[in-house]
Parts: sequence; C-alpha cells; structure tokens
Amino acid sequence: MVKVGIVGLGLIGGSLGIDLRHQGFKVLGVARQRVTCQIAKHRGIVDKADFNLDILAKAEIIFICTPIDAIVPTLERIIPHISADTIVTDVGSVKESIVRTCSELWPNFVGGHPMAGTTEQGIDAAQANLFQGAAYVFTPIENTPQAAVSELKAIARSLGCVTYTCSPEEHDRAVAWISHLPVTISASLIKACIGESSASVADLARKLASSGFRDTSRVGGGNPELGKMMAQYNRDNLLRSLGQYRDSLTQFIEAIDREDWASLEKLLESTRQARSEFI
Amino acid sequence: MVKVGIVGLGLIGGSLGIDLRHQGFKVLGVARQRVTCQIAKHRGIVDKADFNLDILAKAEIIFICTPIDAIVPTLERIIPHISADTIVTDVGSVKESIVRTCSELWPNFVGGHPMAGTTEQGIDAAQANLFQGAAYVFTPIENTPQAAVSELKAIARSLGCVTYTCSPEEHDRAVAWISHLPVTISASLIKACIGESSASVADLARKLASSGFRDTSRVGGGNPELGKMMAQYNRDNLLRSLGQYRDSLTQFIEAIDREDWASLEKLLESTRQARSEFI
Repeated sequence: MVKVGIVGLGLIGGSLGIDLRHQGFKVLGVARQRVTCQIAKHRGIVDKADFNLDILAKAEIIFICTPIDAIVPTLERIIPHISADTIVTDVGSVKESIVRTCSELWPNFVGGHPMAGTTEQGIDAAQANLFQGAAYVFTPIENTPQAAVSELKAIARSLGCVTYTCSPEEHDRAVAWISHLPVTISASLIKACIGESSASVADLARKLASSGFRDTSRVGGGNPELGKMMAQYNRDNLLRSLGQYRDSLTQFIEAIDREDWASLEKLLESTRQARSEFI
Repeated sequence: MVKVGIVGLGLIGGSLGIDLRHQGFKVLGVARQRVTCQIAKHRGIVDKADFNLDILAKAEIIFICTPIDAIVPTLERIIPHISADTIVTDVGSVKESIVRTCSELWPNFVGGHPMAGTTEQGIDAAQANLFQGAAYVFTPIENTPQAAVSELKAIARSLGCVTYTCSPEEHDRAVAWISHLPVTISASLIKACIGESSASVADLARKLASSGFRDTSRVGGGNPELGKMMAQYNRDNLLRSLGQYRDSLTQFIEAIDREDWASLEKLLESTRQARSEFI
C-alpha cells in the first residue's frame, strides 16, 4: 500500500486525502492544530494524522498543501524527517519562485497546481471529487526526475484531473491572465461601485444587482489573503497583464467617449468570438 | 378578458406572451416577419399574431419589446392604430431618453425594465417563467398616470417579479454600475487576454481557463449589438462609472507595484465585505 503524506489539511489537502484514500492509498496527514488532526481522522480524510513530522518518515509521496508563503519553510522543516527517494510536490497557485527554491532544497521535488477550489476554506470545506474534471498542471524544470513527474501525473489522472506539463514561467504567465487578473479587475469593480455618491442610486444598484454583476464580481469577493499572495508571488506577470488590461479598457472608454459605435460593436464582436475559445 | 398587445416577439416579448397567457390575458402579438408570427401562434406564445398593426386596435395594454433603438419609432408607428386610453410600456434596459420622448408622444406611457434574460435571442429562446424572481423596474415621470403604473406593477407581480419604482435617471445611473460597467470590463478582460504575445502561453491560458475566468468574462462575451446600444443610450452614466472604475483599478495596480501588500489585503477585505451587500 503506497503511503502518501499530506502536510496542511485545509480545503485542498483535506479533499486530496478523501480522494486518495478512495484510490487505495494510505494517507498520513500533518496539521499544526490537534483539533484539525482529530477532525481529519474522524471524517476519514486520513488514515493517521499528527502535528509531529515524524509521521512522514515512511511516506513515498508528500503533498505540501499549505498557503503559498509556507511552502518553502514547510519543505525545509520536513526534510530532516523523510527518506531521500521521497517525491515531494506542492499545490501552490504560483510556481516559479517556489519550484526554483524547492528543487534546490530537494532534487525529487515536482511543482504542481490542481486548479480546483470552492469559496470555502479549511478542513470543514474538504469534499470528495473536488478534482473531478479539473486541470492539474505540473511544472518540472531541467533537473526534475521524469519518473517523479510520471508518478504524480498518474495519481492526478486517477482523481479525474486533466494533466498538463509546462515550465513554471509559462504557468505563472498563463494564470496571471486567467486567474490573477480576473481577481484584480473583479475586486476593482466592487471597489468602484461602493464609491457611488448618491445614496439612493447606491441602494438601487444593490437591489437590482443580478447575474451579470454577481458573476463579474465573484472572484473579487474571495479570500483576501489568497488574493494578496497571488499578487505577491506573481507580481511581475500580474503587473504585465494589468498593464495590457488597462490599455484594452482605455480602447473601450475612448470608443464610447468619441461615440464611435461601429468600433465599439466591432470590439464586442471580437470578444464574443474570442471567449468561445477559452470556455 | 383583458387584451394585451406585444410588439416584438423575441426573447422578452415571446416569454412575456407565454406567461401573460397563463395569467389569463388575451395576447395579441406583432412581429415584422410572417414566420415569427407563425411560430408564435404554433407555440401558443400568443392568441393572435400579425405584422399588421391593426391587430393592436383593441389592446388595453401594449408592451413594446423591440431593441432599444426601435422603441420610439415603434411607438410613433402604433399610435395611429390604438385608442387613447391604451397603456403603453417598453422593456428597454435604458430609460431616460426613451421615457422623456415616449411620454411626450403618448401621455399614457410608462417606462419599464424587466431585468431578466438569457444569452439566447429571438423567439426560439422564449420560455415560460423567465421573469420569476426577477426585478422589474418602472420609471414614471411627473405626468405619468399613477393608475397605469399600478396596473403594470400588478401584472409584473403576477409574473413573479419584484417591482421597483424610481426615476429614469436613477435607473440609468444604477444599471450603469451593475450591468453596463460589468459588460465593458468583462469585454476588456477578453480583449487583453487575446493580446498575449507568446503562442504557448496563450494556448495554455485557453486550456487552463476555468470558473474564475468563465464568470468574469461571461457578460463581455454577450450580444455585441445590445452592448453597443447600452453604451450608446447610457453613454454619460457609463463613462462616469468607467472613470471611477479606472481609478479603482489604478489603486490596485499601484499597491501591487509598490509591493504594499498590507494595503492590497485591506482593499480585498473591503471588496469581500462590500460584495455581500450586493448579492
């Protein structure tokens, strides 16, 4: 029975535990808080759980499922407890800085990013089949052992994921467009709306807000700590995307300002067509 | 049996016909194309349909359900065919310019905006219960007969709508925030993403795009003609909202640029809290 360690039993770590146990793995969980370990065992998310890192000694594969800023420190802390052939991977939504550092610390490290989630956080949000149909990106670099990548891809596919492989740099540039940029522009929408100076208009806007506003503002109303860390760890790519976004916005504003309705309709026609290639 | 006329048998007009007939009204439909009239009769959307405006002679209430730019010309065309006590309303998503003009042409005119829809268009998209739970805004002005407003509100409520009353100006300013601004920023997102210069990153972004991108880009991938008309008929309010939006965006960009993560997290915390007041 292959033993898998999971460090960090939140939404992602907990949901991974449930699905990996279903796949027949023996799951060893690590959480800082005793109560999280108890919940994980009680709900059958893990076979064993402890706050002591010794529990990882026999793990063949370890998933680091902590917040982004804790990934490198966590790897440093677990290294003294694990055997040299252990495959270590993470689930962070930013890859370049993490993968470079972790691969130096641990040659058998593979960066990974399962693109699944809900608006909830913590072990209480852990659920079966969270990864069904999701993209799971692996970001090996020059020295990453191919066997480790293959083993992780097979596990990801067994969870129902569609796997992709690319460089950490390509990953970060792509997610800046489709994940980190949407968070920023969606949050800016909410920020702008709350600036309406007329109380009666603001009140009416709140009452009339329906599916269009709900969808466009959704990711801007998410976890602030995660939003901050995405920007912090993917700053250059995000700023680059934001710059291009502001230029696009200006094109729309200028077309409306000079009442160039033909250009505006052409712009909207091009975005309608382009969206179908993404969705 | 109260007779209701519907001019324009598309998504909104057709769906209104279905629900009004369920409520026991006799529905008289007008469409430009003979085939639309045939489909409307065949599907039981109307009791009678014709391209000849004489069919409206006995209607007590008329809904103009044409595109925004056809509302005023349609009213001008039907006036010679209808009796002086007929209540006329429209369903346009912009109100100020329409209501001022129509009320001068027809004293018994009431501006209205049922905030329901799908991404589909045309009579084939017409469906029962489209208005269930939707907001329906009426925008009377100084001289609008109160009895006409009351009668229309009662009909809207019978369709399952929550009714609101405000001035055309307040309506247009509120929908600029929650409807027209989201369309523009969402379209700008798509426009920016297709500008990625690396083919491999662009390809990866398309593959990885999931719920966050899907939701944030949805309304920017809608009907270009409708998007253009919203901007055209609500230009000043939309430009005002866009200006404030660009200022908000700049605040986010500046916080990220100067690596002021505490301010960024505070901004994201405020937008998370504010969103819950809208949704």
